[in-house]
Amino acid sequence: MDYYSSHIKNLIEELGRLPGVGSKTAQRLAFHIISLPEERVEKLAETIVSARRNIHECKVCHTLTDREVCPICSDPARNGRVIMVVENSRDLAAYEKTGKFDGVYHVLQGAISPMLGIGPNDIRLKELMVRLQEPVDEVIIATNSSLEGETTAMYISKLIKPAGIKVTRIASGVPVGGDLEYIDEVTLQRALEGRTEL
Amino acid sequence: MDYYSSHIKNLIEELGRLPGVGSKTAQRLAFHIISLPEERVEKLAETIVSARRNIHECKVCHTLTDREVCPICSDPARNGRVIMVVENSRDLAAYEKTGKFDGVYHVLQGAISPMLGIGPNDIRLKELMVRLQEPVDEVIIATNSSLEGETTAMYISKLIKPAGIKVTRIASGVPVGGDLEYIDEVTLQRALEGRTEL
Repeated sequence: MDYYSSHIKNLIEELGRLPGVGSKTAQRLAFHIISLPEERVEKLAETIVSARRNIHECKVCHTLTDREVCPICSDPARNGRVIMVVENSRDLAAYEKTGKFDGVYHVLQGAISPMLGIGPNDIRLKELMVRLQEPVDEVIIATNSSLEGETTAMYISKLIKPAGIKVTRIASGVPVGGDLEYIDEVTLQRALEGRTEL
Repeated sequence: MDYYSSHIKNLIEELGRLPGVGSKTAQRLAFHIISLPEERVEKLAETIVSARRNIHECKVCHTLTDREVCPICSDPARNGRVIMVVENSRDLAAYEKTGKFDGVYHVLQGAISPMLGIGPNDIRLKELMVRLQEPVDEVIIATNSSLEGETTAMYISKLIKPAGIKVTRIASGVPVGGDLEYIDEVTLQRALEGRTEL
């Protein structure tokens, strides 16, 4: 890449390390950034660094936040006795967007994956157990419907059910608006198993 | 987005302004950046700012470079009497990768587009005319094969041919490895018109 100067080369390399950014995308982004006004670029860089510096895990639910305790955990209107367990802050955000859940969350910051060498001690499971020493009405497991998510759900369920805590799992089934003919067999089977009376 | 703290929100917004980065991708990138070690994030931010600060147009060919005159223009082994006109530095890089061109370039930094309100004065055309006051053997027009690229090629050709300078256009045709059955009609027609004797 002698035809690019070292500054462009470094920028393309750095951007290319981001997830989902291939070398073509990295080039496109790099040239876009170079074409922006200098103030805009400085603002972008500042925002990146300040987000990284100020964000850490909420000491209660372990979602990413810039406060000690996140807005959801510190909201007295939320029902602290119903805890929804999710894999990460994006999943928490997805449920918050529904506006239909008034309990609190526990963010695992990952899922158990023997393939990737991620065990129960690598996610915020101990922290969940500590929270469950307080009285809790229900733990809703909302990990993804992937192999890792299901494994994690089973593991958590086995761990906390013996303590007499009600554990539920969000439903698997046909997505709303989904056309049966395009839905995979496992999902169809789950939808059948999880049928409810009308 | 109350469930994200303002630092994450700002980061997602800034990243979402980059071309081709939608809100989902911006979220994914933001959370990735937050998960990186602080030094890595600082390096990314530094690279972004320093690329923007140190890059400007080569004063001869107008490609983006961190020197006053880019490595290609200052290379005595290149034939300065053959100038290839391209739209941008990425196109220059694409031709450099072939290793088959030993002339020099002229980077227009755009193409004429009446749709986008980009006229001949908005690209580095005056600068090309200045260069053509020195003796030149050939001007190869290698703008894209798009409407804008073709318009620009025609415009340049009409402008400089009267001065008795040899002007050529890179060939349009079937890409190497291309299957005729999937090639559009205009390209097939061009390939026919541009046929060469074997």
